[in-house]
Amino acid sequence: MDQTRREVGLGEFGRIRRFFAPLAGPGGLGLMDDAALIDCAPGHRLVVTVDAIVEGVHYLADDPPDLVARKLLRANLSDLAAMGARPLYYLLATALPASLGDDWVARFAAGLAEDQQNYCIALLGGDSVATTGPAVLSLTALGEVAVGAEIRRSGAQPGDRIWVSGTIGDAFLGLQVLRGGYPSLAPVDRVALTRRFQLPEPRTALGPRLAGVAHAMLDVSDGLLADLGHICEASHTGATVVLQSLPLSPAARRAVAGEPDLPASLAAAGDDYELLFAAPPEADAAVGRLAAELGLPITAIGTIETGAGVRLVDAGGNPIRVATAGYRHF
Amino acid sequence: MDQTRREVGLGEFGRIRRFFAPLAGPGGLGLMDDAALIDCAPGHRLVVTVDAIVEGVHYLADDPPDLVARKLLRANLSDLAAMGARPLYYLLATALPASLGDDWVARFAAGLAEDQQNYCIALLGGDSVATTGPAVLSLTALGEVAVGAEIRRSGAQPGDRIWVSGTIGDAFLGLQVLRGGYPSLAPVDRVALTRRFQLPEPRTALGPRLAGVAHAMLDVSDGLLADLGHICEASHTGATVVLQSLPLSPAARRAVAGEPDLPASLAAAGDDYELLFAAPPEADAAVGRLAAELGLPITAIGTIETGAGVRLVDAGGNPIRVATAGYRHF
Repeated sequence: MDQTRREVGLGEFGRIRRFFAPLAGPGGLGLMDDAALIDCAPGHRLVVTVDAIVEGVHYLADDPPDLVARKLLRANLSDLAAMGARPLYYLLATALPASLGDDWVARFAAGLAEDQQNYCIALLGGDSVATTGPAVLSLTALGEVAVGAEIRRSGAQPGDRIWVSGTIGDAFLGLQVLRGGYPSLAPVDRVALTRRFQLPEPRTALGPRLAGVAHAMLDVSDGLLADLGHICEASHTGATVVLQSLPLSPAARRAVAGEPDLPASLAAAGDDYELLFAAPPEADAAVGRLAAELGLPITAIGTIETGAGVRLVDAGGNPIRVATAGYRHF
Repeated sequence: MDQTRREVGLGEFGRIRRFFAPLAGPGGLGLMDDAALIDCAPGHRLVVTVDAIVEGVHYLADDPPDLVARKLLRANLSDLAAMGARPLYYLLATALPASLGDDWVARFAAGLAEDQQNYCIALLGGDSVATTGPAVLSLTALGEVAVGAEIRRSGAQPGDRIWVSGTIGDAFLGLQVLRGGYPSLAPVDRVALTRRFQLPEPRTALGPRLAGVAHAMLDVSDGLLADLGHICEASHTGATVVLQSLPLSPAARRAVAGEPDLPASLAAAGDDYELLFAAPPEADAAVGRLAAELGLPITAIGTIETGAGVRLVDAGGNPIRVATAGYRHF
């Protein structure tokens, strides 16, 4: 509809050519075609997911563009891992205000390039348009999983143990640090926490290894309790989580040392991108071996039960109320 | 990052449940999982494309939401058709301002539902987030094509005839009508032109039938001359188009009757979503049969040549200058 040219700097085609075409894999056809081609491995399914983030809502206008790009990409890779899938490709749609120049786009693309190397993935295609509002970045990720090896949210069974990878709450605390919280925390802890907020580690190695082990899985993005609620709802079960069993990082332990109510809030905080899964007790040894092999803590935090809803309890089994159950947009 | 709840009306999850989950196909898992699953037909490749549109840039805030949805979807289906692919699924990421309530979303989803029926496709997944700016809507479409049947931009050869489906320029004229242009045009013509702008007809039946016929293809979205330029660039060829051969609809002919320079502008105007392809002269009969079978005009408009660049000429072969060569963002 906008028939006028408003080219600034390299322009749309120039940016695609300069910054994004070098990121394209073979199926992306150099981003020169209307669409991209994907070959499917025999006996496999493709797995696809999409996430959008908005400047001022999901990140700040002056956040480093490379970290914005990498976090967006990693959030999607986390969704693939949560299905037990191996990542392959992604597509990117950007709506950018005129205030973001070629330099911002260059640094954004550099972040993508770095994580393409880290995760062995390639860009397949995209679209770039102008907006009069804040930037909106939408990324579609594609992966593959052997037929039958996919892990959904709906398979949890009463008696299953509930496991979570890594540590919980670091991203939430990192955001507080970025906002000026925890001023007396040691610099090394402040860096560790903010890093977890700005650059999550999707568990791409663990996810596919849980085929045949986990009954149900997702990644912790809305908050551990809210996400466990999604598993319970899809599986028609309830769940109990023991607060004292939640895995906290050393930095998080030091941050919350003086605040007795905080660990419960961490159970509700989002953005951790750890894998949360349910597995039968017979799988305990297999989970332990995976944790050792990958050098990644995997912690049992509760039990799937009959009924509905998620209960958080203390070590004595007494219910703990949590103020918020994850965050939502709108 | 936005840890506060700002739920208005149904909220994010409510909208997904109410409006979008009913659109999900089997692979979409009811939109209840982290990602969706796609089975690939043996001997086929998946084809994937993404487009984003912005309120106030690609459509107006008071445009009917169902038409906004359908145009976005159809633009993507047109990209699939341009690769010779059959459409299967789509994913949708929406960034919406608080000013767009549940009613807008309901009508938007109703438009999607209608075109899912028309094109036998289903929703696979999506994301919905809030923005403080204008709405940004990003759609990823997936289709399939038999291995080797895909049609790229890069295969045009000197001597190929250049063909275009349907008629050219209607969408551009329809936009002018919406902006108050052509006040003396008959109402029936005004409706015909605005309809073409608001609701393009992706050539999903024609595209896959051109496998083995067309050497190179794309859909006309940037403008016929600019898009032909893309084919020439990718194919390392030039091209000549004869202005008088451009297929104009009866409504367009009446609109431009008094404006001798306008047909050349129509050759540069975008949004037609017709298929533009190059095929060897031996394929003339096959193209004619397809046109008759599908009840869709397919018109020869020029020739692929050695060299580079696109020339527009009159019936006598004299070059015609065109003011603009398609439109771009940024």
